[in-house]
Amino acid sequence: MQTLSAEGCAARRQALIAAADVDLLIITNPQHLQYLCGLTITPTALSAYGVNFLLIDAKTGYSTLLAHNFLANAARAAFVDEVRLWTWYDAATRPGIDPYANSVGQLNAHLGEPAFNGAARVGVELGWLPFGVRLATPVDITPILHRMRRHKHADELALIRDAVAAVSAGHQAARQTIRAGISELAVYNAICSAMVEQAGHAILPMGDFAAGQRTGDGGGIATPAILQAGDLMIVDVFPVVNGYRADFAATYAVDRTLTPAQAALERGLHDALQAGEAVLKPGVPASAVYEAVRAALAEHQLEAGFGHHAGHGIGLGHPEAPFFVPQSDEVLEVGDVVTLEPGSYKHGLGARIEHNYLITATGAERLTAHSTRFIET
Amino acid sequence: MQTLSAEGCAARRQALIAAADVDLLIITNPQHLQYLCGLTITPTALSAYGVNFLLIDAKTGYSTLLAHNFLANAARAAFVDEVRLWTWYDAATRPGIDPYANSVGQLNAHLGEPAFNGAARVGVELGWLPFGVRLATPVDITPILHRMRRHKHADELALIRDAVAAVSAGHQAARQTIRAGISELAVYNAICSAMVEQAGHAILPMGDFAAGQRTGDGGGIATPAILQAGDLMIVDVFPVVNGYRADFAATYAVDRTLTPAQAALERGLHDALQAGEAVLKPGVPASAVYEAVRAALAEHQLEAGFGHHAGHGIGLGHPEAPFFVPQSDEVLEVGDVVTLEPGSYKHGLGARIEHNYLITATGAERLTAHSTRFIET
Repeated sequence: MQTLSAEGCAARRQALIAAADVDLLIITNPQHLQYLCGLTITPTALSAYGVNFLLIDAKTGYSTLLAHNFLANAARAAFVDEVRLWTWYDAATRPGIDPYANSVGQLNAHLGEPAFNGAARVGVELGWLPFGVRLATPVDITPILHRMRRHKHADELALIRDAVAAVSAGHQAARQTIRAGISELAVYNAICSAMVEQAGHAILPMGDFAAGQRTGDGGGIATPAILQAGDLMIVDVFPVVNGYRADFAATYAVDRTLTPAQAALERGLHDALQAGEAVLKPGVPASAVYEAVRAALAEHQLEAGFGHHAGHGIGLGHPEAPFFVPQSDEVLEVGDVVTLEPGSYKHGLGARIEHNYLITATGAERLTAHSTRFIET
Repeated sequence: MQTLSAEGCAARRQALIAAADVDLLIITNPQHLQYLCGLTITPTALSAYGVNFLLIDAKTGYSTLLAHNFLANAARAAFVDEVRLWTWYDAATRPGIDPYANSVGQLNAHLGEPAFNGAARVGVELGWLPFGVRLATPVDITPILHRMRRHKHADELALIRDAVAAVSAGHQAARQTIRAGISELAVYNAICSAMVEQAGHAILPMGDFAAGQRTGDGGGIATPAILQAGDLMIVDVFPVVNGYRADFAATYAVDRTLTPAQAALERGLHDALQAGEAVLKPGVPASAVYEAVRAALAEHQLEAGFGHHAGHGIGLGHPEAPFFVPQSDEVLEVGDVVTLEPGSYKHGLGARIEHNYLITATGAERLTAHSTRFIET
């Protein structure tokens, strides 16, 4: 599996220390453990259970990862000064109640040590740190971390490109598989298998896989429903691959024919995508990206069916900042990785297409190369 | 999708109220939200993000589910007196930092209302409730919930049987797929596809899928390694299907031949499984189940390669109580659902077989019917 780099993690820890005016940082959100020390948790393995903590001494930069024994291998591969393992379950005595509850006691024991209990100001993520941790008045550093995540580092981009490759393989499988008489679930399975083969390991599949009438709702998880001639199928795939995300969509014509209404929808979405692409560069307000896409859809009489964002950031999260919505106060920056996803859905007929982009000094680099045509020509 | 029943959820809420001496209960662990009000979160959908809370007034039994808007459909289908939705993301303004951080503010606002702020004693799960929630000195009810979970209700057993059906389909696919020249990943994909087709919807796949030398380590996630003639492959599947688990294993001979050492391993594991089965009944110490399996393996000179538990409980969790380990202080009870999983691993050769059982008044009902023979006869 690919991982973040030691240099990237060290640089992000330094940036966090510089931005947060604290003595000690306690990181709990698994996304931020990966971001700051490269800890990669396999979402389909037993080791994914429980809470683990990264402690960073803001004065010295010394980093300590506190993890349970089932995560030992991943913890030892992480970029930290020290790994402290505690035993969740050793197969001799029964484990405590659950690794979430147990982890709290472990952290409390460590916070009682001289190395940590001199910290007057402690930075934490208030939505992630468990309640039972003994701390007087910690500072919430969640906003700092989410602000930092806007600017993707080189090692993060490498993982996002891996995720793009996996989702590309998924879309290729979708195009080869989709035909009348098979189920949405069969398409879903073909996509998942192709992504796993490309990635070389298990992924956490997420996305929309909706055909026929359900395209009018914009998406939904795959069902046993059978694809019919004349249907469209929306395939929007945003799995977790090594902790990072790609997120791109296409709409497929089940029997390689389009009604006039479907063809009009396809034209409108592609014009809207182009309109969005044309404004992607640093300094552009996120609301202006939304407006470009919306206006193009309006010209095609598709605005009434467009009820969601025009796109959003991706990275460790999905969706994450910036958000292409009418009232966003965000502005595009170099290092943003974003999606554009014009869609329109009405009366049981809908479609969406989507690409991913890296915002560069001069504009935007498109990271995705799949065909968004309803019928491949 | 199948769900728990309204009656089952109400009975569990009443039992929790009776066992916990508190005025108000705040439930955070998603497993316990399902357990107590049937809220079913699709792990592969966007709605899975964030924290949601179930508040139960211990005097009146009145239950309130506090959920974000992406979970609206699942929340409305839950068995509660009241659903309160808050807007994480409405596609007009950008959402707050993340749904975890936002949920804390939402809960705090609700706890400030007259209906809630008279509660002197509040029961919570200390490992799950986020730190930022404003509560003086809550009581940890985690042990009560884990104790309750030992006795599976009828609606839980129905979901466990569904999970068994899915994993059975996975093992059938494994037996049909495994052959020299294909990869562990290809077997993994065949298993996942079969489970999804059987379940009728996405599942969260978890398990061990390890062939050849890696059987000597007991397991691991699937890799691109190619199966070789003469190899064994351990397939141990424990997905999350509608929130509940099945967990059973088989070992397959890649080219339908066995060396004398592999054949001896197969005989020993089946004797050990039978020895474990023979003692499964209410009142038997969990340590005695371990000892029965261990002793049988010892008779076959397989004890040195047996480093894990002899089995454990399953339900919402995996593993959960009771634990078949030498120093367990647990005793089997009617309503326990458990696994037996003798295994032995040494010098690059290992195997494991596993069945699932419901402990009944008179003994145990085997819930699983897959073949554990290395070669199907």
